[in-house]
Amino acid sequence: MTAPVAIRRLNAADADFAQHLDHLLSWESVSDDGVNGRVLDIIKAVRERGDAAVVEFTQRFDALDVASMADLILPRERLELALTRITAEQRQALETAAARVRSYHEKQKQDSWAYTEADGTVLGQKVTPLDRAGLYVPGGKASYPSSVLMNAIPAKVAGVPEVVMVVPTPRGEINEIVLAAAAIASVDRVFTIGGAQAVAALAYGTESVPPVDKIVGPGNIYVATAKRHVFGKVGIDMIAGPSEILVVCDGQTDPDWIAMDLFSQAEHDEDAQAILVSPDAAFLDKVAASIAKLLPSLERETIARTSIEGRGALILVEDMTQAIEVANRIAPEHLELSVENPEQYLPQIRHAGAIFMGRYTAEALGDYCAGPNHVLPTSGTARFSSPLGVYDFQKRSSIIHCSAAGASELGKIASVLARGESLTAHARSAEYRIKN
Amino acid sequence: MTAPVAIRRLNAADADFAQHLDHLLSWESVSDDGVNGRVLDIIKAVRERGDAAVVEFTQRFDALDVASMADLILPRERLELALTRITAEQRQALETAAARVRSYHEKQKQDSWAYTEADGTVLGQKVTPLDRAGLYVPGGKASYPSSVLMNAIPAKVAGVPEVVMVVPTPRGEINEIVLAAAAIASVDRVFTIGGAQAVAALAYGTESVPPVDKIVGPGNIYVATAKRHVFGKVGIDMIAGPSEILVVCDGQTDPDWIAMDLFSQAEHDEDAQAILVSPDAAFLDKVAASIAKLLPSLERETIARTSIEGRGALILVEDMTQAIEVANRIAPEHLELSVENPEQYLPQIRHAGAIFMGRYTAEALGDYCAGPNHVLPTSGTARFSSPLGVYDFQKRSSIIHCSAAGASELGKIASVLARGESLTAHARSAEYRIKN
Repeated sequence: MTAPVAIRRLNAADADFAQHLDHLLSWESVSDDGVNGRVLDIIKAVRERGDAAVVEFTQRFDALDVASMADLILPRERLELALTRITAEQRQALETAAARVRSYHEKQKQDSWAYTEADGTVLGQKVTPLDRAGLYVPGGKASYPSSVLMNAIPAKVAGVPEVVMVVPTPRGEINEIVLAAAAIASVDRVFTIGGAQAVAALAYGTESVPPVDKIVGPGNIYVATAKRHVFGKVGIDMIAGPSEILVVCDGQTDPDWIAMDLFSQAEHDEDAQAILVSPDAAFLDKVAASIAKLLPSLERETIARTSIEGRGALILVEDMTQAIEVANRIAPEHLELSVENPEQYLPQIRHAGAIFMGRYTAEALGDYCAGPNHVLPTSGTARFSSPLGVYDFQKRSSIIHCSAAGASELGKIASVLARGESLTAHARSAEYRIKN
Repeated sequence: MTAPVAIRRLNAADADFAQHLDHLLSWESVSDDGVNGRVLDIIKAVRERGDAAVVEFTQRFDALDVASMADLILPRERLELALTRITAEQRQALETAAARVRSYHEKQKQDSWAYTEADGTVLGQKVTPLDRAGLYVPGGKASYPSSVLMNAIPAKVAGVPEVVMVVPTPRGEINEIVLAAAAIASVDRVFTIGGAQAVAALAYGTESVPPVDKIVGPGNIYVATAKRHVFGKVGIDMIAGPSEILVVCDGQTDPDWIAMDLFSQAEHDEDAQAILVSPDAAFLDKVAASIAKLLPSLERETIARTSIEGRGALILVEDMTQAIEVANRIAPEHLELSVENPEQYLPQIRHAGAIFMGRYTAEALGDYCAGPNHVLPTSGTARFSSPLGVYDFQKRSSIIHCSAAGASELGKIASVLARGESLTAHARSAEYRIKN
């Protein structure tokens, strides 16, 4: 006998639906003063004492008996060795995934541009890659080779000359598939360090670790807190909240498929959120039955159950128009449109990290190998932010080259506006360029 | 008799040059616990009590005798009225500047794209504007109409349906040119509120102020601190440091022009930074003489003097190659290449917010009307970030639409990788799509 699964049911026709939905979605990351203080101490120590501090923290937090930073550097040959230690099937899968991710991201690459005006003035934008990017890869249980591909490949496609990876190896545990992924993604240097000390080392540099311009990649609360603190000194990617999926289904997909798609999110962690929206009440019942049937068969049953019961929901809507409204309200990280002719709804969708269209496009395909990035905006931030991409590793410089004639005309306008703002040195600098 | 001006002189050939340069550039924004606490209280009050709290804070901080939010809303007609209250010359200058800024930014607009693979799988990226953007405009002495144009126009070009502007009017002071700029930039709604309370209202919404998706625009320490706190709930632009210019000159530009270009930065505020680099030692002396001669003639002499003496520098380099190295090390917000044939150096320049090329392109032209944005990365952050642009008001959603055949092939790869990560619900979700 299977244990009943208590998954929340909502009806968009209810008067208090908006309120229930708000409550369901509410998520505020906990900021912990204790963590904050410890992280600030670690950053300070690494800034002041460099390698020595990193070695000490690694001895303490990762229980590693290392004498110096030299013991925490993995040479390229070690990555190549990992390629021979994973199965041929794994290597093939990683290489195919990497090729697809690379091919997709090459379409995101932006080029410099410029145009010349009638008077000879040239305006444009010069696009350049970052000099050096840092990639944080968690060690231990949440060590994901796919994240190495998804973070390193866009940087390399952008043209970043040096990608530096840090990955802790607590008690000496090394994940061979992670190192193999680093080899395939052309990561340039690897340090087996982690935590706030690794973030601080990447941001400020030490005798051994070169300072980077941007730090990307997931991590625990110490890593996330350290990233917040070094932001400004270096760039960072988003601080991710728990992962979420919203499945919109017309009721015609196999309910077992939909249940498993929801589980593929729920198995991540207890705070993950999996929501199904459908205009078909009978279908919601079928999926509830599939959930109850399949949940006990999951390897990560306990995690998935906590997620489904705590933050999951089955939402009944009037029609597909209302389903899309709910999707835009949620602005989900992953939006699965498990419907007939999903293209018809695309113009109405305004906010989603990634849109998985049709019954065959399981989120898991996008997580690993379809090509688009799996680092996506969570917790409704798709309203204003985008998937990780090549554009995160490129930056722009405005180009302005005024001809003598152009400067003379623009100088007159600038003079009026600058004097309107009482910035008269601005005005006089412009006026010098006005022809008499 | 003019007072001597004590401007720092550095020589790149000195052994300790790198150290001196680091010291010159060092800048850490002060974080003030008192400010932090007050800002958190204000945000909490606005979240809990909405309009009532905003009205109270406005009464207190802006010394405004207002009864309700209705007194803090400027209708469109009031903006139109402002257009009639400024001079014809000012209106013409604003309109020309706006047209040029619009025309340049239209070239930054990004479109959705997609491609179809051999098996029918479609991959792409859908680009959409934000629903609503908030623009903070400071009141009082630092009230800049040009900032209204530079922040609002990219949002409108991106297609943001609603741009909401907040501008405090301490003691009832209204800047007519700012309102006129808002009319010209097609700002949709204006509230005369400011400070942390305005940022909180934009982030969380009140009965009268609609919640926005991103907040941009400059502000004082309270505004900057509030923006940091609401980041995550909404997007924000960069928290700007003091403005800076690096002029690279071959020694052939009129030294008075270069001195005034340096002043146009130095007059902003005491912390602004103006640096000149040249391989011509005699020219550095000439510019020093021009600085001493012209400084007393500035309306904002005191501010400019503090900036020049406290944070300015004249740097002698061996040659233009070394000058460009210094520029890349500094990654300046504004880089003026006041040299013959500046194009020849462009490929070597890796980091700068905006590059002003040739002797005629004074920074002031770019500040007001050349077309590119004047909101630029400060304090070396040009190493990893870009000028404000249309791309800051657009975001992307990945598109994945697998054909049945595509899902079957991708499912096999995803299955291997997911099992390698022990995420078996991911694997089973993918495996459902594999054809037998």
